[in-house]
Parts: sequence; structure tokens; C-alpha cells
Amino acid sequence: MSNNGYLLNFWVAAVAWEAGKPLVIEEVEVAPPQANEVRVKILFTALCHTDVYFWEAKGQNPLFPRIFGHEAAGIVESVGEGVTELKPGDHVLPVFTGECKECAHCKSEESNMCDLLRINTDRGVMINDGKSRFSINGKPIYHFVGTSTFSEYTVVHVGCLAKINPLAPLDKVCVLSCGISTGLGATLNVAKPTKGSTVAVFGLGAVGLAAAEGARIAGASRIIGVDVNPSRFEEARKFGVTEFVNPKDHKKPVQEVLAELTNGGVDRSVECTGNIDAMISAFECVHDGWGVAVLVGVPHKDAVFKTHPVNILNEKTLRGTFFGNYKPRTDLPSVVEKYMNKELELDKFITHTTTFSEINKAFEYMLKGESLRCIIRMEE
Amino acid sequence: MSNNGYLLNFWVAAVAWEAGKPLVIEEVEVAPPQANEVRVKILFTALCHTDVYFWEAKGQNPLFPRIFGHEAAGIVESVGEGVTELKPGDHVLPVFTGECKECAHCKSEESNMCDLLRINTDRGVMINDGKSRFSINGKPIYHFVGTSTFSEYTVVHVGCLAKINPLAPLDKVCVLSCGISTGLGATLNVAKPTKGSTVAVFGLGAVGLAAAEGARIAGASRIIGVDVNPSRFEEARKFGVTEFVNPKDHKKPVQEVLAELTNGGVDRSVECTGNIDAMISAFECVHDGWGVAVLVGVPHKDAVFKTHPVNILNEKTLRGTFFGNYKPRTDLPSVVEKYMNKELELDKFITHTTTFSEINKAFEYMLKGESLRCIIRMEE
Repeated sequence: MSNNGYLLNFWVAAVAWEAGKPLVIEEVEVAPPQANEVRVKILFTALCHTDVYFWEAKGQNPLFPRIFGHEAAGIVESVGEGVTELKPGDHVLPVFTGECKECAHCKSEESNMCDLLRINTDRGVMINDGKSRFSINGKPIYHFVGTSTFSEYTVVHVGCLAKINPLAPLDKVCVLSCGISTGLGATLNVAKPTKGSTVAVFGLGAVGLAAAEGARIAGASRIIGVDVNPSRFEEARKFGVTEFVNPKDHKKPVQEVLAELTNGGVDRSVECTGNIDAMISAFECVHDGWGVAVLVGVPHKDAVFKTHPVNILNEKTLRGTFFGNYKPRTDLPSVVEKYMNKELELDKFITHTTTFSEINKAFEYMLKGESLRCIIRMEE
Repeated sequence: MSNNGYLLNFWVAAVAWEAGKPLVIEEVEVAPPQANEVRVKILFTALCHTDVYFWEAKGQNPLFPRIFGHEAAGIVESVGEGVTELKPGDHVLPVFTGECKECAHCKSEESNMCDLLRINTDRGVMINDGKSRFSINGKPIYHFVGTSTFSEYTVVHVGCLAKINPLAPLDKVCVLSCGISTGLGATLNVAKPTKGSTVAVFGLGAVGLAAAEGARIAGASRIIGVDVNPSRFEEARKFGVTEFVNPKDHKKPVQEVLAELTNGGVDRSVECTGNIDAMISAFECVHDGWGVAVLVGVPHKDAVFKTHPVNILNEKTLRGTFFGNYKPRTDLPSVVEKYMNKELELDKFITHTTTFSEINKAFEYMLKGESLRCIIRMEE
């Protein structure tokens, strides 16, 4: 029935039928790719907080049934009309945000916020026809951020697929398709610490530790981890974090504590919690004259960033970043190469693995705060 | 009595005896320069809003009697112990903020906020001995920001003097020692618009027009002037401003008006009013993905900068600048060269001239909003 010779398009996916309820492994029909789409066989997927956030559906419009998953690696199975950059067999990372290569953002050297394929968490369908490629007995199952990698096969817009080195181990580099690149790029592409500088990282989850890994790669001499959970400190040492500050241990604002530790402020800060107070502290803790604060974490929709303007006028810079300012198709292959040439360490981010049939364990690990990344093997 | 062979150190200065009262031309003793100090014969000085602000002394601690003035040009008359970079006869611009060349800021490529000589509006004395070099009948007259150029002779720390091309006309380049460099550098050094880009300038006073001049030099294709005073629009055309927006003409916030005019936002904005609402608008009006907002204007001490953090996370950059990020000694000579080679136009900033004995006229022009810059000739 499909254009590519398959008579049957049935595979197994983990379907979220309701907010907050365990995913159910179901047989799902995955329609062939349409124009500018690619059907990908997923080999490994990881679980990211964003999956959990939208699965819990607290505070957003719930969209169910849905197939979550957006940190993954796979192999192209078939391509739709007009796809020339990818062919069956290519190794790819699906990415929750895309790169059309045509819009003003894609043409700008500075932006990765593609007009056409920028992340859209409310849309559960493909942009080509406004429909889902997933169905059970003809009833559509919604997509998630254009990737839906909790499925043996998924359909992704070609602009949301980074073609990578086929020698790269997919069970490792799959984590580069979201959180790790987000933190790493925030430091390397946006904060840009120089060798020997001092970097503060707010929040020592996977994204924050990836930001620290970026600071380590950049040659920062001091990497100060800031977190309210001291149980994260020991593990963070593996990521180059040299010192720790728990804001709960101090009566004064953490920006003042950091200023005292660093003779006036850190050279760079990267905020990876999304807590609005941490965002403000991350800005105010950088040194006047040259400090750069980079905000990564996404705050509550009603949060307000407030600071005294003198903090800005004293030659501090405040920058926001999205996906570490990486353009998915153009830049991710080079991040994979950083891993291949051992500049970037990824294995330490992978604390757990599980099988696809036990995908709900990955949710449990994350909800308990036990895991950085749990890799889910699609093939048992 | 002095080290340099002068028996008498008496010259004429315009003394501010009380807040808001006309300056009085007085004979003042100007002591010889001490270690690391230079005595300068001022030939031309201009009046800047900062002089007026501290002369009015609304909201700050009043410090009187005082000799104001900080935008000026002159010739070195004598130098104190340890001064090797300047000698009598050198042409100099005194600057309200200095460059010691030794501190972390001076050693940083990014900062011009010298630890030793950064602007200090509360200090009315020289840092060498905590005393004034000005006196009348032995009673000290306070300095202002280390320059006090409303005097035929003044004493300035060597770190606050930029040695410039002796061919440069001092009656023109004197305006580079404060406001014009501040606006120009905010655009050229901090906002850094690329050729063909769109720049919004908030506030069309001398600093804002200098920011526009920077955008013109950088090759911006659209320069949008934002001001609540439409009488400034016509003159602003001379400075490259191509379009005007008066926030009072619109019911919606000016950032929304600008976004509509520019398909989503300007590439760069420079805020030169110090009004906190303008600062917020200047930030929010830049394009996501690549927009950079630069804050120049100094707000009320109780002002709070507030924005939704999504405005930051959408890859906008917010930067503050001080004196256009120019290092006074290192960088100002090259700004003078920009004027000499006709890249930078200065004459259009000079709307009035007067004599030293009529210095109070310069205050009147500025208070009425009639002048951009009024040059005061020290020699009648």
C-alpha cells in the first residue's frame, strides 16, 4: 500500500493513552513518509525531562493518545518525495526542532530557531498534511515534537534529522539529540568561556552536567556547580565540576556567595534549572566588565525576570539559548565527531539502560531522580 | 612654588557654588600635578547632561563648591612624577573614567571598567592624596569625575587622558571625550550591526544620535529613531535615521510597533534614554534568534528591569555598556582618527558655541532642549 514496497506498516510503539499513566506497548500502523518526510527505524532512545513534563501534562493542554520520545538514534528506512539528502541506511539523530535551510533563521549564522520547524509542543501532527502518521485501527495517535521516538519506526520531517557518521555507536550518541547538546552548546557556542576562566553552572542534572562538560572542554580552570541537592555533587566531579555551592547553606543570595568566592563574580554562568530565582542569580553572579550569563532552563510561564538595570549597565551580558544554538542538520554531525575523537565524553551521562518493553522503568528512574540518562534499547 | 617653574598657579575657572545656581567665573589656584597626574590647559570644553545632572544635584549627595566639566580637549602643561606617557605640548582628551592598564579590567579585552579609575561621581578629590588641586584663598574647590574641565587649567590623573593626533581640531574632537563616543561605541563595539541590518535607537539626544551615526557607519540599511519628542526627528535625519516612531502615537507597546515594521523585530537596538520602560522595550523589540539590545542610558536608582524570560530564551542578547566599551587611553585616539579620515562626522553634533565667560548660556541651551552640543571656547 505504501510507496516504498511495504505491504504492512505495523510496528510496536509505546503509547501514552492518558496523562501520567504508564505507557502501553501497542501495535501501531506507521504510515509511509510523505513529501519531505523520512521513516526511521529507531534503535535507541533515551528519556528526557521534556517527555515526562508533557506526559504529566500539568499546566499544558493535554494531547493524548500520543507517542512521546525525542532523544534517539536510528537508521533511515524509507524516504518520501523530494528527500534528496538522506537515503535508506543512513544513520540519523531525530531532533525535536528542525532546520529548513530556507528561512531567515536558517540563513542567519546566529540563529537555530527555524521558522518552519521550530519546536512545537502543541502540534501532534505532521506539517505536510496536518495529520498523524501513527494509527491504531484507523484512529490517529498523536506525534510529539515531530519525533515520537518511543516507536520501532517513526516518521520525521527531513529537516529534523541530522545525518551522522555511520561508525558512531548509536547507543551512545543518541543522547546528543536533545539534552546533552543543549547544555554543551550553551557553554561552547554561547557562553564561550576562555581557557583558565571560571564558570558557574546552575543545576546539575543532565543538561547542567553537559554545560559543565563544555566548560571542561573549553579549559575552564574553575567550574562551580550550584544545586540545592547535594547528592548530585559527587557525581558532578566526573564532569569537571571543581567546587560546589548549595544555596540552602547560605543566608545571603547565592550571587553574593559566588562573588566572594571569585573576587567579584564568575566569568561565565550557565543556568539549567528554569527556576526564575536561579536565572536571576545566574545573571547577577557574573563579573562586571566581561561576565556572560546564559539561560537554558525554561521557566514557568508566569515567571518574571527582574534585575536592577545597573547589573546590565556594568557591562554584563545576558543571553538565552535554545538547543545550545546548534543548527540540527548543520552542526550535530560535528558534535558526534567530538565524541568520536574523544574530546567529548558521553558514557558518563548514561547511568541506566532498559529494554523497550520495560520503558516505564526509565520514567521511574527519572521521577526518583536516580538517572541522568536511561537508554532504551528498541531491540530486545 | 611649584615643581615646574611656575611661581603662580592662578587661573580662571567656572565655579558651581550651589546646586542649580549659575556658575561663577573665579580666579582659582590650580596646584601642580602630583605623582601620576598631569596639569592640562583646556582649550575647548562642551557641556554634557551629566554635568547638568550633578549641578542640579537632585537625588544625589550635593558636593559643592565644585568645578564641573568633563567633555573637553586640551594641551599638557606639566606632568607629575612617574608620568612617562605624556609630556608638555601633547594634545589630550580628558576622560571621566580612566585606564590604569594594570587591573583585571584593563587587562581584559572585553572591559573598560578600570578598577582604579572607573567613574566616581561622589569623589571630589584626587586619588593620590585625597585632596583637591583647586582652591580659592586656601579653601578647596571639589573636582568632578576627575576632569573638571570648566577651568583654564585642570589636574587630571594620567590614566584619564587620551593622547591624540596633534593635527586634530580640538574644537571638534573635544566632544569625543564623553557622549559621542558613548553612543558611537555602543553601536560599533557592542551592538555590532552588520551591513544592511535594521537598528532601532531609543532617544534622539546627542548620545542616541551618536549611536545612529555608528549604525550609519556600520552600513545599517534601516535606522529607526524612537523618541517621544517629534521635534527631534528632522535633525535626526542628518545622522542617518531613516524612520521614526513616537511611542505616544500608538496604543500598543512600541516593541510591538517595531516588530510589525520589521517582520518580527529589529536586528539591533540601542537604548539611550535611561527610561526603564524604554529599556524594556529596547530589549523586547529585537528579533528572536539573533537580536542584540544594548543599554546605554542610566536609569533611576529604584528602577527595575522586568521581562518575561521567554524573551531571553528565544536567543536574544541583552548587553550593557559604559563609555561605548572604549578604553580611554587605548581606544580614543583611533576614534579621533575616524573623524580625521572623514568616516565619522562630528560637526553636526555641534549646534552652539559660546565663550567661557558666558558658560551659563550653554546650560540654558541644554535645559531648553535646544542644543546637542555647545562648545565653550576657553580663550575669548
